[in-house]
Amino acid sequence: MEQLIPSSTVGVKINEWYKYIRMFAVPDAEILKAEVEEEIKHMKEDQDLLLYYSLMCFRHQLMLDYLEPKSLNEERPKISDLLEKIESSQTKLKGVLEYYCNFFRGMYEFDKKDYIKAIRSYKIAEKKLALVTDEIERAEFYFKMAEVYYHMKQTHVSMHYAEAALNIYKGQKTYTVRRIQCAFVVAGNFDDLESHEKAIPHLQKALKDSKAINKHKLIGASLYNLGNCYYKMKEYGKAAEYIEQAVSLYENDKSDLLPHTLFTLTQIYFKMKDIEKAFILYKKGIEKAQAINDDVLVAEFNYLKALYIDSIDKRTVFRTFSVLKDNVMYPDLEELALDTANYCKEIGQFENSTTFFAVMVDARIQIQRGECLYEI
Amino acid sequence: MEQLIPSSTVGVKINEWYKYIRMFAVPDAEILKAEVEEEIKHMKEDQDLLLYYSLMCFRHQLMLDYLEPKSLNEERPKISDLLEKIESSQTKLKGVLEYYCNFFRGMYEFDKKDYIKAIRSYKIAEKKLALVTDEIERAEFYFKMAEVYYHMKQTHVSMHYAEAALNIYKGQKTYTVRRIQCAFVVAGNFDDLESHEKAIPHLQKALKDSKAINKHKLIGASLYNLGNCYYKMKEYGKAAEYIEQAVSLYENDKSDLLPHTLFTLTQIYFKMKDIEKAFILYKKGIEKAQAINDDVLVAEFNYLKALYIDSIDKRTVFRTFSVLKDNVMYPDLEELALDTANYCKEIGQFENSTTFFAVMVDARIQIQRGECLYEI
Repeated sequence: MEQLIPSSTVGVKINEWYKYIRMFAVPDAEILKAEVEEEIKHMKEDQDLLLYYSLMCFRHQLMLDYLEPKSLNEERPKISDLLEKIESSQTKLKGVLEYYCNFFRGMYEFDKKDYIKAIRSYKIAEKKLALVTDEIERAEFYFKMAEVYYHMKQTHVSMHYAEAALNIYKGQKTYTVRRIQCAFVVAGNFDDLESHEKAIPHLQKALKDSKAINKHKLIGASLYNLGNCYYKMKEYGKAAEYIEQAVSLYENDKSDLLPHTLFTLTQIYFKMKDIEKAFILYKKGIEKAQAINDDVLVAEFNYLKALYIDSIDKRTVFRTFSVLKDNVMYPDLEELALDTANYCKEIGQFENSTTFFAVMVDARIQIQRGECLYEI
Repeated sequence: MEQLIPSSTVGVKINEWYKYIRMFAVPDAEILKAEVEEEIKHMKEDQDLLLYYSLMCFRHQLMLDYLEPKSLNEERPKISDLLEKIESSQTKLKGVLEYYCNFFRGMYEFDKKDYIKAIRSYKIAEKKLALVTDEIERAEFYFKMAEVYYHMKQTHVSMHYAEAALNIYKGQKTYTVRRIQCAFVVAGNFDDLESHEKAIPHLQKALKDSKAINKHKLIGASLYNLGNCYYKMKEYGKAAEYIEQAVSLYENDKSDLLPHTLFTLTQIYFKMKDIEKAFILYKKGIEKAQAINDDVLVAEFNYLKALYIDSIDKRTVFRTFSVLKDNVMYPDLEELALDTANYCKEIGQFENSTTFFAVMVDARIQIQRGECLYEI
């Protein structure tokens, strides 16, 4: 499968192109333009990026127009005068370009996990946004910020932006998809605040809206998130109900989300002590995971069998944990280690239980440390 | 001891006073002014609040000046015209007042733990700040934001503001105290990112600067924070060294921070297995805690004896945990439960260990939940 280029990388390249445009460095600008166009062909789809690209094409053309050949008698204008002339007549364009420039720089720094720099760029973008755009463009920005801060686990800041976005989308009938995505962010934040019960109504609404517009991906995500929420609340019956609906949908659609969803369902049935049903799901799930060569997921399925069927086969459990560590999947490691510790405690294997509690504590420390990649 | 009024409460009252001023409602404005002045007498010291107060007095006087008695022949101007007249000639004052108005509203909402609303107010204040103030005023705002977001555990956002504040204070010789306070915030954030080793250089610099200006409170805090950092890194020897220096300082100054600092030192010696020294500190510490009727700290000292001297007297341990729960001190509970679990594991009491691990896991959930007090 082709590895797609993230739009933030292309965005940063457009920033570079802009630099040359503002210097009237035509050959360099042309080269960058061609490179950007090549990269766009292999890029993950992103409407914002395409808008930024077309605005920059327009700006590129303005540069060319101002550089039309002069007759020998005419005086050649200074670059700074030209720049002034273009930018003073195109203040709105300039503002929007600066907005996108900082927005994509922020995305790029976010991808590199350089969070302080990312926040700095986003704040500059936000100021420009206030100058130049309409309500829906603002909502778009707020939504993106809600997403970004959610991934950084800056929960309260994320909630602030999600609320700001929702307040705008609420008044707009046509933005159902964004409203659903906002609901996912709000629900995710509530999960991080261990307030799963507050996430439920947002996800129920998301499910209803997704069905209304018949978007399978969003219906599936709503079902999965609802199931996951009930799972975290230890309401396994309800959890199984929703995840089973997600499984059916993904089976029909031949979705690549199926194997992972089967894993969650298998976990739930093991916790419900329905070993028979769980084992059937395990066999089906590991087969699917093997078919797509997903080694991590195969290891996770092996872990479930080692724990619940082979009465804690510690070698296999630790082998799975190694795989998760090698793939820097500490949140998964934390979850499985805690499950293992609790299960051992439940069946009276206390020494083993303390070993796995210690693994969990260590995983949490790694998660915290992992977010700290910058120097100050 | 008199319970001091938080400045955020007085700030919100000044906001109300401002509302009446802008309505030219003289009697109400006068009443609010008197109430504010009364509250300031019993308020925790806050330079920003006092500045806001004096600006508002000036604005109050402007209102009165414009309302001077007119002769019967003169036409009485409309309130809206008066307001327009004052505010258009005092745009800078208006901007600064709006800044403080939103800043204190944010502080007030922050105190109530309504974080989304607090963030919203801070963002409005920030916009006004850009319009009206000089560099040092901006640095003040950034520093406050760094503090606020640190307490909200929005670590990356806090780091962003701390860096912004530091960049301004760096160029200013006279702002040593603020530079030291910034270092504490940066170090605290690194602690939250489990990157204690990155906190050390900031605290070392803070210690050096505090000594240079001979501020005992800041020297003590630097020593304590350094000791705490090494404690978290399990470098107990170094930890003890710094905390001992803090203890000496607090003893000389008869500081009310002494009993708590003795508790930390006692913990360290127990972990170093220097039971004799630890027990001496325990006796000294619990006496001090009893003398000031600090029931929580007394309970925490009881816990140390129950764990390390009375070979895990579970009744006392759980009694201490109850006291912590009753006082909503879940971070303390989390720490002590983890210590207990690890200690039990170490001496082979595995069943007890799993019990305390479970207490720790539960405390973490309570911490997360506790931050979620708003509805969306």
